[in-house]
Amino acid sequence: MSLTIIGTVAFDGIETPKGSYPKILGGSAMYAATAASIFSPVNIVSIVGQDFDQEYFDYFINRKINIDGITITKNNNTFYWQGFYEKDMNQAFTKQTQLNCLLEFNPIIPEKAKNSRIVFLANVDPVLQKKAINQFTKPDLVILDTMNYWIEHKLKDLLETINLVDILILNDQEIKLLTRKDNLILAMKELFQQNKLKLLVVKKGEHGAIMYDGNTFFSLPAIPLDDITDPTGAGDSFAGGFAGYLASAQHIDINAFKRAIIVGTLISSFTVQGFGVSKLQTIAKQDLIDQFLKLKDITTLSQDIF
Amino acid sequence: MSLTIIGTVAFDGIETPKGSYPKILGGSAMYAATAASIFSPVNIVSIVGQDFDQEYFDYFINRKINIDGITITKNNNTFYWQGFYEKDMNQAFTKQTQLNCLLEFNPIIPEKAKNSRIVFLANVDPVLQKKAINQFTKPDLVILDTMNYWIEHKLKDLLETINLVDILILNDQEIKLLTRKDNLILAMKELFQQNKLKLLVVKKGEHGAIMYDGNTFFSLPAIPLDDITDPTGAGDSFAGGFAGYLASAQHIDINAFKRAIIVGTLISSFTVQGFGVSKLQTIAKQDLIDQFLKLKDITTLSQDIF
Repeated sequence: MSLTIIGTVAFDGIETPKGSYPKILGGSAMYAATAASIFSPVNIVSIVGQDFDQEYFDYFINRKINIDGITITKNNNTFYWQGFYEKDMNQAFTKQTQLNCLLEFNPIIPEKAKNSRIVFLANVDPVLQKKAINQFTKPDLVILDTMNYWIEHKLKDLLETINLVDILILNDQEIKLLTRKDNLILAMKELFQQNKLKLLVVKKGEHGAIMYDGNTFFSLPAIPLDDITDPTGAGDSFAGGFAGYLASAQHIDINAFKRAIIVGTLISSFTVQGFGVSKLQTIAKQDLIDQFLKLKDITTLSQDIF
Repeated sequence: MSLTIIGTVAFDGIETPKGSYPKILGGSAMYAATAASIFSPVNIVSIVGQDFDQEYFDYFINRKINIDGITITKNNNTFYWQGFYEKDMNQAFTKQTQLNCLLEFNPIIPEKAKNSRIVFLANVDPVLQKKAINQFTKPDLVILDTMNYWIEHKLKDLLETINLVDILILNDQEIKLLTRKDNLILAMKELFQQNKLKLLVVKKGEHGAIMYDGNTFFSLPAIPLDDITDPTGAGDSFAGGFAGYLASAQHIDINAFKRAIIVGTLISSFTVQGFGVSKLQTIAKQDLIDQFLKLKDITTLSQDIF
C-alpha cells in the first residue's frame, strides 16, 4: 500500500560520549522514511533550504524515496538542531535550534501521493500535521507521532489533530505528560478511549514497547545492547519502520500491528548503533530477520511453567 | 529441594493513595517466604520482638513455613518500618525506621536446615547474610537480594558477600548504583563476570525483568496493571517466588531459571494488588497458571515477521 510521510528534514549537530558530528542528515521524516523504505516505496513531504546539496537529495533518491513533496526555499537554510547526550544517553540536551526554513513549512501533498493508503505524520508542529491530513482523499490509516514540546506548547492543536488519526505513537514520558497519569496502563486506556483510536503504541526505549488495541495489550522488551552510539532518531525510525511495515502488509489486522511494533523495535536497535542514519541505512530485511531471531530467543516463554 | 530463607520479619505502617495501614506484617523474609511457600516447604530464619503475637506465628505455621529459625527477644519490639508512596508509587518514602530487635539479629540456622539445597538471603545487612551462608553445609544454590542502603553504607561487606553467592537479584536502580554504569546491559555483564555468578537477575518493576547467565539474556515484560494498591514487598516476593520455584524444580538449568523469573514476575503482579500480603497470601498455583497465560498472550512473538 502506498505510504506518505510528513515531517522534518534537518541537519543535526550531535555530540555523544562516542563522538561528535557537527553536520549530519537528520529530521523526523528523514529517519522515518529511511526506516520505512526498507519495506515500501515512500513519498516524503518536507522542506529544506538552499544549503541542501544534491548529495542529500541523492540519499533519498537512492532509497526510492520520492522527493516531489520536498519544498526547497532559496532564501533560507535547512532546519538545524544541535544537541548532546550525557553518559546514560536517555535524554537529549539541546544546544541550539535554528528553525530556518521550517518557519515557512506549509506541507503540500503532491497530487500522486494524495491517494496514499497509509499516512505517517512524523513529529512536527501539530497545526502542520492537521493541514497535511486534510489533503489526503481517503487514507486507510493515519499514524501520528509527536514530542513533549508540542504537548507543552500547542496542546489544543495537538489534541484536535490526535482526534483525526487512527494510530498514535508516543514514548512513555510523553503519554504521562499528555494524560497527567502516572500509571502507564491506565494512561493508555484513557487516551485510547478519549480519541477513538484503532491502536495506541508506547515506545519505552531500553524497556521495549507496548501497544493497546482497546481489548488487549501486547508488550515486548528491547534488544539488549551494551553499546549505544547515538540515540538520535531511535523513536522516529521505530515509527517509520512501523508505518513502512504496515504499508507492505497483505492485511492490516491485530497480528500485522504486533509485527509492526516488533519491526519498529528491531529497527531502532540498529539506529542507535551509529551516528545519524550511518547504521540504519545499511540495514536490509535479512538483518531484521536475524535480529528478530535474537529477540525471540530472549523472550520466548516456555509452554508450561509447572 | 529444601529451602531456607534468611531476612527480616517486621511490622509495617504503610500509606498509599489507596489507603493506610498502621501495622501489618512485613519484612523481606516474610514476603519471600510467603511467595516461596506456594511451591515448597520453607525454613525461615529471622528475629521478632515481644510484641509478635501468636496470630503472626500462626500465619507462618498455616503456610507450612518452619519457624524454628525465628529468634524471639523478650526485651524488645519487632522491627518496624513506616513509609508512604506518592501517586506514581515508584518510590517508597520512609517516615520512620525502628530497628528494635533487629539490632540483636544474629542468624542461627537450625540444625535441620543446615543441609538446605537452596538458600535465599533476602534483604538484610550483608554482614548477617555472610554469617548465615557460612552455617550451611553445602547448598546447591545461594541466592542474594539487597537494597540501595547496603550499597551506599556497607559496600565492602556487600561485595564480599556477593562473592560467595551463585545468584544475585537486584533492581535496575541498585545495579546502576553498584556498578556505576548507566547502561544496564553493560552493568549486568560486568557484575556477572566480576563475581563469577551463575545467574544475575534484574527486576525492573513496571518494565518486567531481565536475566543473564554469562551467555544469553532472557527478558520479559510485566503484566499490565492499571491499578496498584501497595508496591511494598513486590521485589521480595519476586525473589521468594524465584527461590521457591527453584526449590520445587526437578532440574536446575537455564530453562528452570527462565521459568523462575516468569514465576517471580507473576507473583509480584499479585503482591501489588493488595496491602501487605493480603492478596499474595490468597494465591495458589492455578492463579499463577492463569496469569501466565495472560503473560504469554501479551508477549508471544509470531513465528515470522515477513
